[in-house]
Amino acid sequence: MFKKILIANRGEIALRVIRTCREMGIKTVAVYSTVDAESLHVKFADEAVCIGPAPSKDSYLKMSNIIAAAEITNADAIHPGYGFLSENAKFSKICQEHGIKFIGASPEMIDKMGDKATAKATMKEAGVPCVPGSEGILEDFEQAKKVAKEIGYPVMMKATAGGGGKGMRAIWKEEELLKAWESARQEAAAAFGNDGMYMEKLIEEPRHIEIQVVGDSYGKACHLSERDCSVQRRHQKLTEETPSPFMTDELRTKMGEAAVKAAEYIKYEGAGTVEFLVDKHRNFYFMEMNTRIQVEHPITEQVIDYDLIREQILVAAGVPISGKNYLPQLHSIECRINAEDPYNDFRPSPGKITVLHAPGGHGVRLDTHVYAGYTIPPNYDSMIAKLITTAQTREEAISKMKRALDEFYIEGIKTTIPFHRQLMDEPDYVAGNYTTKFMETFKMNDPE
Amino acid sequence: MFKKILIANRGEIALRVIRTCREMGIKTVAVYSTVDAESLHVKFADEAVCIGPAPSKDSYLKMSNIIAAAEITNADAIHPGYGFLSENAKFSKICQEHGIKFIGASPEMIDKMGDKATAKATMKEAGVPCVPGSEGILEDFEQAKKVAKEIGYPVMMKATAGGGGKGMRAIWKEEELLKAWESARQEAAAAFGNDGMYMEKLIEEPRHIEIQVVGDSYGKACHLSERDCSVQRRHQKLTEETPSPFMTDELRTKMGEAAVKAAEYIKYEGAGTVEFLVDKHRNFYFMEMNTRIQVEHPITEQVIDYDLIREQILVAAGVPISGKNYLPQLHSIECRINAEDPYNDFRPSPGKITVLHAPGGHGVRLDTHVYAGYTIPPNYDSMIAKLITTAQTREEAISKMKRALDEFYIEGIKTTIPFHRQLMDEPDYVAGNYTTKFMETFKMNDPE
Repeated sequence: MFKKILIANRGEIALRVIRTCREMGIKTVAVYSTVDAESLHVKFADEAVCIGPAPSKDSYLKMSNIIAAAEITNADAIHPGYGFLSENAKFSKICQEHGIKFIGASPEMIDKMGDKATAKATMKEAGVPCVPGSEGILEDFEQAKKVAKEIGYPVMMKATAGGGGKGMRAIWKEEELLKAWESARQEAAAAFGNDGMYMEKLIEEPRHIEIQVVGDSYGKACHLSERDCSVQRRHQKLTEETPSPFMTDELRTKMGEAAVKAAEYIKYEGAGTVEFLVDKHRNFYFMEMNTRIQVEHPITEQVIDYDLIREQILVAAGVPISGKNYLPQLHSIECRINAEDPYNDFRPSPGKITVLHAPGGHGVRLDTHVYAGYTIPPNYDSMIAKLITTAQTREEAISKMKRALDEFYIEGIKTTIPFHRQLMDEPDYVAGNYTTKFMETFKMNDPE
Repeated sequence: MFKKILIANRGEIALRVIRTCREMGIKTVAVYSTVDAESLHVKFADEAVCIGPAPSKDSYLKMSNIIAAAEITNADAIHPGYGFLSENAKFSKICQEHGIKFIGASPEMIDKMGDKATAKATMKEAGVPCVPGSEGILEDFEQAKKVAKEIGYPVMMKATAGGGGKGMRAIWKEEELLKAWESARQEAAAAFGNDGMYMEKLIEEPRHIEIQVVGDSYGKACHLSERDCSVQRRHQKLTEETPSPFMTDELRTKMGEAAVKAAEYIKYEGAGTVEFLVDKHRNFYFMEMNTRIQVEHPITEQVIDYDLIREQILVAAGVPISGKNYLPQLHSIECRINAEDPYNDFRPSPGKITVLHAPGGHGVRLDTHVYAGYTIPPNYDSMIAKLITTAQTREEAISKMKRALDEFYIEGIKTTIPFHRQLMDEPDYVAGNYTTKFMETFKMNDPE
């Protein structure tokens, strides 16, 4: 087993990893940028190394500094969390070359799954259903036009290196195609340094339902059921739940089998997520595979009593998995609490938290790196906490979430607590009747 | 279902009940003494009524004020929590007479189980194993001497109205009997206004293991397995866990059956706890039945995903139970965090909490009514929080507790956090090798 793990991340996920390491008796090294010195992940690690100034390229993305920190502290493994370097093939390779275990996918695996067009081609080979679309990257506008005609409008154009909605366009008719092609490529080039585009059939009334998988180093994989992440705003997930209210036992079996097939086909090692789009007829299509822990992993942990970070570490250390699939025993919901003003178009609201009272009691879990007196820097993602409730039924989990949101008290900054509180009363949400389009028509009520 | 419940209690248990009421859509009324105005239970209830000054006899024990508060606010039920009026037959009766549902035992049931000698006689009738001892209350010192000789030394003398260790004496030989008889009676008279005494065989190397039961108004009862509460200091529980490390499947079946038999024999309604002493040969003896929710109920909730307060409310409203017994699926530990100085003979340490950081994350539950800025009044029990960890194994639950205790940060007062932190490393505790005598030889290490 590893003796010391460096966590190449910040915020709640860094703290999340540190917690499991402590429980496993593994020493931890936190890294931090100059503006993160007061974050809890720094306070709770056994050691902490400053790796540079706030811009991520100079700290959390600065591979040489992170490797140096691991070498100085004698860390024998690096956990990358999510985002930053978690799906960076070069970093995974550099870790390998330095004899440091990267707790994540191999460089080859990241290359295979990180490029969306390649990923899709691989999944097609494995026999996993994929959305009809271009075979790989579109060569030019003429090919884009041709493919769109073949698969039929509406279509979706996506940046091959994309994520977070950048370089992505929905096109409903041929006349819109040229403008979309040009603007999406420009956006992708600016965001990812890569303007490669591919095209897919646009799924109407789509639900984003993902399957958690774990694979070991012996070629075996299992699935841990689904998470419904359809409630999104500009392709950013806001709240997730498991089981999905749209799920049937039959569909879960089929999607679970497809996800395990995908993982075993590529000999996937570690925790990963196979994301699917599910249409209103319950057809499902492979979207992408994330070769890392997801933000929303706790809801899976809650319904199957399974520590996924622990599992990542065990698998990375060569421990085999049982191969048993896990089905949800309970219902769990996560609300991402962001430092944003939901009454002002979710504008970021960094600053000092003057008062913080955390909810507690039966069925309530809170993952956060912030506290009263902490100043949220403006440099990063605005998520400050994940509030998770778990109960025997969906109805009870919603009631518990309302109660917990009512108890959650933060002063000094604006947060998305009022958004989630309203969401939990929205008839369509309560009925489980939502798609990825849900937020397009959502309006905040006037503040009380 | 009830429309509004008044909670005739304070602190964490009042908040605990309010939380479940909110989740069930039931309105709540908090009552509070003048020194409790800033407690969370007051802030989180829909309504709050001040019922008098700090001494409990003038507020939390003042039946007329509580009934008046219920009538003014139109509450249709009263939840008494634990302690205070929760096992007071007169209060249960007064509620009945006022047409207010008492969420607890009937006056007859409290009379039957509240008097320990009567309780024991009833359990003997039901066929539940009891510790050999006097048949009811001892008439005089001569009878005490005679009974002690019959059952053989060592013996235990106990106040029939007792609790919390008051009016209780261990006697190892006849010469000690007279002094113990006199001092115990004086103590009992002062504490309970009742100097009735009974006597039992003293169980050596005893473990305190209790069985949670729930009975409905149709005469059916079930059990929810055990809690091991052997780690006690002066008969006050400090930490509890389920399953008991001393338990076997066979013993659980036998003790569970005995507890259900006890509950069904007396037609017990609601949540109750049958406390047993278990000797080193795994013989078990009825000790007493608590006709209320216990402080340590959360660990049972954690391992069976069951909200016990909800169950109390449902049963009180006439909902039948399924009758299914529940076996623990996980392991859960509770540490009672008291405002006491463990380095100074656990002396109470009331005062203002200046900083509070609560632990969180996977498998951690916190039930507390305090917060940064809150002043703990000196008038009540010193418990300020219950920290509960849950995991797949006992070893993991202990690791998680250590991690959570390390994260729990309170400034301004002394707490028992360092005691629990040390306990979790004690070889005998870690081995599950402890009896109710454990604390007699426990010594705090020097502070770091």
